[in-house]
Amino acid sequence: MLPLCWRVSDADRMSDVIEVPVPLAGHSYRVVVGSGLLPCAGARIRAVSQASRCALVTDSIVGPLYAEMVRRSLEESGFDVVIITVPSGESSKSLTQVAFVCDAMIEAGLDRSALLVALGGGVVGDLAGFIAAIYYRGIPFVQIPTTIVAQVDSSIGGKTGVNAAGGKNLLGAFHQPVLVLADVSTLSTLPEREFNEGFAEVIKHAAIRDRAMLDQFDDLTSLVARNVAIKAAIVTEDEFETKGVRALLNFGHTIGHGIEAAAGYGRFLHGEAISLGLVAACRLSVQKAGLPPADADLLISMLARYRLPLVLPSDISTDNILQALRKDKKFHAGAVRFVLLRALGEAFVSSEITEKDIVNAIEGLR
Amino acid sequence: MLPLCWRVSDADRMSDVIEVPVPLAGHSYRVVVGSGLLPCAGARIRAVSQASRCALVTDSIVGPLYAEMVRRSLEESGFDVVIITVPSGESSKSLTQVAFVCDAMIEAGLDRSALLVALGGGVVGDLAGFIAAIYYRGIPFVQIPTTIVAQVDSSIGGKTGVNAAGGKNLLGAFHQPVLVLADVSTLSTLPEREFNEGFAEVIKHAAIRDRAMLDQFDDLTSLVARNVAIKAAIVTEDEFETKGVRALLNFGHTIGHGIEAAAGYGRFLHGEAISLGLVAACRLSVQKAGLPPADADLLISMLARYRLPLVLPSDISTDNILQALRKDKKFHAGAVRFVLLRALGEAFVSSEITEKDIVNAIEGLR
Repeated sequence: MLPLCWRVSDADRMSDVIEVPVPLAGHSYRVVVGSGLLPCAGARIRAVSQASRCALVTDSIVGPLYAEMVRRSLEESGFDVVIITVPSGESSKSLTQVAFVCDAMIEAGLDRSALLVALGGGVVGDLAGFIAAIYYRGIPFVQIPTTIVAQVDSSIGGKTGVNAAGGKNLLGAFHQPVLVLADVSTLSTLPEREFNEGFAEVIKHAAIRDRAMLDQFDDLTSLVARNVAIKAAIVTEDEFETKGVRALLNFGHTIGHGIEAAAGYGRFLHGEAISLGLVAACRLSVQKAGLPPADADLLISMLARYRLPLVLPSDISTDNILQALRKDKKFHAGAVRFVLLRALGEAFVSSEITEKDIVNAIEGLR
Repeated sequence: MLPLCWRVSDADRMSDVIEVPVPLAGHSYRVVVGSGLLPCAGARIRAVSQASRCALVTDSIVGPLYAEMVRRSLEESGFDVVIITVPSGESSKSLTQVAFVCDAMIEAGLDRSALLVALGGGVVGDLAGFIAAIYYRGIPFVQIPTTIVAQVDSSIGGKTGVNAAGGKNLLGAFHQPVLVLADVSTLSTLPEREFNEGFAEVIKHAAIRDRAMLDQFDDLTSLVARNVAIKAAIVTEDEFETKGVRALLNFGHTIGHGIEAAAGYGRFLHGEAISLGLVAACRLSVQKAGLPPADADLLISMLARYRLPLVLPSDISTDNILQALRKDKKFHAGAVRFVLLRALGEAFVSSEITEKDIVNAIEGLR
């Protein structure tokens, strides 16, 4: 049985739909958070797009669950839909898949008047968003994120891109969606591990901007919307990451990305690697920025509550992590810009963290 | 012997250096036209970039001629240079070469603080510009165009991109250079056929905006600068091709691109295919827009003067041309938007041209 499809006017009256505006100059959009949004996605998308044709880009896990439901809704709203499916997993964030999807779109006759809809987790959103950025030099796109990480983080803010052989997210574009539909019902089909990993980014948001959120993890719609609001505020302050504000979102990500790459993609989920990065960044914050140890412990206990890893496996060498780190985009012109916490909810970018500090922090995870 | 290298201050006083501003909101830049610019490129580039590292992207024909000269000049101005060479020819405008060049840049340790310098014709400029648009979500780049087409057309205006299996220039981005150095000395090393093909775009510029230019084809620096000024004015009016002005630059290109694709890339040079497209568009303009036949004949005689083709070989079928045409970006949502001339120097976009008119125009080329 499909969930009941409300008409938009009804949906808008429902108490459990929260809309968060992302008021960017020239390309504002809304993030709609709620449950049961997928079966009536078409009407909400029609409200922001006059396109007649649309590519629905999804992956081999999410597609079988939701693509037909979304396709039907899009067709009811007058879109002619072609579904394009990429393999699930990080390896699909590649120029090879860019070429595959673009060729399928060209084959289907989609031109610059088409719309792209990304249905899936962060990989699909980043890949499809990048394709929307470059297809005919840019077409509009809608994000329908289906994981917690994608709903609270990657679908908002317009960072799109793919990985290069030499590092993650090195090729990309800033391209904002015209609408984000975050349907929390899709989170119920996530395996436990994928559900839990999402909380690494939620805990990160609390750490850098919203300590009080740590006590309010119960209602998913409210929690997702609160995280969307944090991300939206930061993106609005610093759309192109030129003012040092957006960089705060990298809390836990410098070492986290290094661990993710050194472990080999696929071993840790992104959020799991970020959990380790958050632990290291918390401890560095205690040592270097006066974060009260009890606050660090609180954050670490929240990570533990979602069964996220706190200890680095011994077979992942510090050298390999450092090597991966040096390829990270955050190593600006060779210098480390590291995000620390003065207190829970108060993050800042430090230039005082040396490579030796990072080595010690990694060793401290063992 | 290398050409004499003037210091910038001397070069600026030289009468044969012409600077054309491209005054775009937020990212204005200059196009410097003159002879002997390459050996002192570094100083001019240093004036617009504080980068310490730079990728010099070139191709297998232009690289051996000029890359070392430009490298030396860049090094004298304090840039650390890595030269990356792609095979000469249209087939290098591919995602495969994007991956190759990006991997080489990552391997060389270039990050978001790096500069990219494109040294070559239109293929190198389009490819390298696209890479600059997506590398670390965008780094600054300089165009050093070495062909007439690239100097008067493709290096100016920020259109960058690569081809997809299904069509030319379908993947790309708007990314403006920070400087364009058009050294007309490089044109002297062009084979006659490549030299001549450039005049198709020059004649097109005269046709749509500057009839008087047809009498002033003598001095290369002046001619290139005059064409740069036409292109710059149009781009400034309509940077993102949303206002119908930039579309005028497509005069001759709808049928021209179809012929180029149907003939198979490599058979015609771009300008040669455009020459055929210009002939067809002139005749359609006579039939449909009141262009005086004598004006059409004048343009066609100018094409003949540069030995550009005026007759379509019989083995290229009209069907194949039409099929290629339908994949062209200019077929907006299936409708043809065709550029016609009311008079020499007065172009407009027409929606009145049918597919049947196009078939007749193609047949008229036989």
